Amino acid sequence: MRNVKITIQYDGTNYHGWQIQPNGRTIQSELTRVLSQLDQRYVIVHGAGRTDAGVHATGQVASFMIARNFEPDQLRDAINGNLDRDIRVVEAEFVDDSFNARFSARRKTYHYRVWTAGVVSPFAYRYVYHHRGPLDLDQMRQAATSLVGEHDFSAFTVMYSDAKTRIRRLERLDVEGDQSGISIIAASEGFLRYMVRTIAGTLIEVGRGRRTASSIRDVLQSRSRANAGWTAPAAGLTLVRVDY
Amino acid sequence: MRNVKITIQYDGTNYHGWQIQPNGRTIQSELTRVLSQLDQRYVIVHGAGRTDAGVHATGQVASFMIARNFEPDQLRDAINGNLDRDIRVVEAEFVDDSFNARFSARRKTYHYRVWTAGVVSPFAYRYVYHHRGPLDLDQMRQAATSLVGEHDFSAFTVMYSDAKTRIRRLERLDVEGDQSGISIIAASEGFLRYMVRTIAGTLIEVGRGRRTASSIRDVLQSRSRANAGWTAPAAGLTLVRVDY
Repeated sequence: MRNVKITIQYDGTNYHGWQIQPNGRTIQSELTRVLSQLDQRYVIVHGAGRTDAGVHATGQVASFMIARNFEPDQLRDAINGNLDRDIRVVEAEFVDDSFNARFSARRKTYHYRVWTAGVVSPFAYRYVYHHRGPLDLDQMRQAATSLVGEHDFSAFTVMYSDAKTRIRRLERLDVEGDQSGISIIAASEGFLRYMVRTIAGTLIEVGRGRRTASSIRDVLQSRSRANAGWTAPAAGLTLVRVDY
Repeated sequence: MRNVKITIQYDGTNYHGWQIQPNGRTIQSELTRVLSQLDQRYVIVHGAGRTDAGVHATGQVASFMIARNFEPDQLRDAINGNLDRDIRVVEAEFVDDSFNARFSARRKTYHYRVWTAGVVSPFAYRYVYHHRGPLDLDQMRQAATSLVGEHDFSAFTVMYSDAKTRIRRLERLDVEGDQSGISIIAASEGFLRYMVRTIAGTLIEVGRGRRTASSIRDVLQSRSRANAGWTAPAAGLTLVRVDY
């Protein structure tokens, strides 16, 4: 048995997220199906980030054990040959048995993309949230600084969360602008459920002038979901990298 | 009545090309439907490039007369509001009555995209032709120089063409490489049917070493379709701009 690490890209539009569930196609269920078929046994696939329905990835990482004898590139191609073209394994490599894509992850980086120009490109609409009109980047950046660091992020996750602790260390929260819109870049060892999308939704409200940048510290300290902004739509979110 | 010029982008994957036809959704039929509804009469839409089924556009241009009183941005938004998200009018402007998107066009520029890396990105597969493995860019560029200029392009179009003349002046035929593949850039006042795709297919055969660069001049001079290479798939082709 070899332990394998794969890097995966997917257009999440037509999937019910990462995690296997009783009904609906997920990224994990597709990989499990293909790997179990290749290895002629049930293969357990560990994923670094449990992306929600409709969320995309350019740098998701997964790991699994495999018994059959494959070279890494051969395995990569064998998996791809059995997947739809909106999921691709871009790299496969053998790793130490102690490696687990989920538990070994040191940092995950997500991008949330807001399209602010008047017309959304037909090549981009699946991957952005469209807010027509300008956003105040300075105010958004100022709000973001309140969230960086180690905090109880209860206000920025689902009300009933099964996480052992809601304390997370947000390593990075940047807001970058370009011609067609803005990107919110968030990095942490781990995120709570809906955390990036709730942060994005709240920052967008700040950018629109619906909230002040200085109010965000109080929202965080309240630890109450009711005080944060709306959960921005899944389509704008992409898991771009996982560091180990 | 005002004469209107619109710039359009589309993902051609789900369309039977530009031109209206009895069966199947086309870009022209979609625009005709929406404009006729907005103007309460049958609106004739002229397009600069009659792209084939599955071909994309980032800079297609069309023109039409409209009776109803619209500001250009209002008209743009009204059209977009009635189209699927894979077609977008990115700009609308009033132009002189003598302007016709098809007959006034001075130059059209197409890109043909070949993905040569091992794994095609799930975000790119609709817009590329996948040829796995290296292509010899120097040979492709040398072959391209034989085609630039004014020639009878009978060898690079359909055998039975209704074009009055098969003489065209190819202004530009460049081959550019990058990390994931190559782009063939072709510019001319007008192209014959399947001309860019047949040139692309032939250049790819040169890049693979199936033909020599020096043989291309003979292919052109033979004026026989049988001597040129295969017609590269529609998905790789994009109309990127039209100059007037």
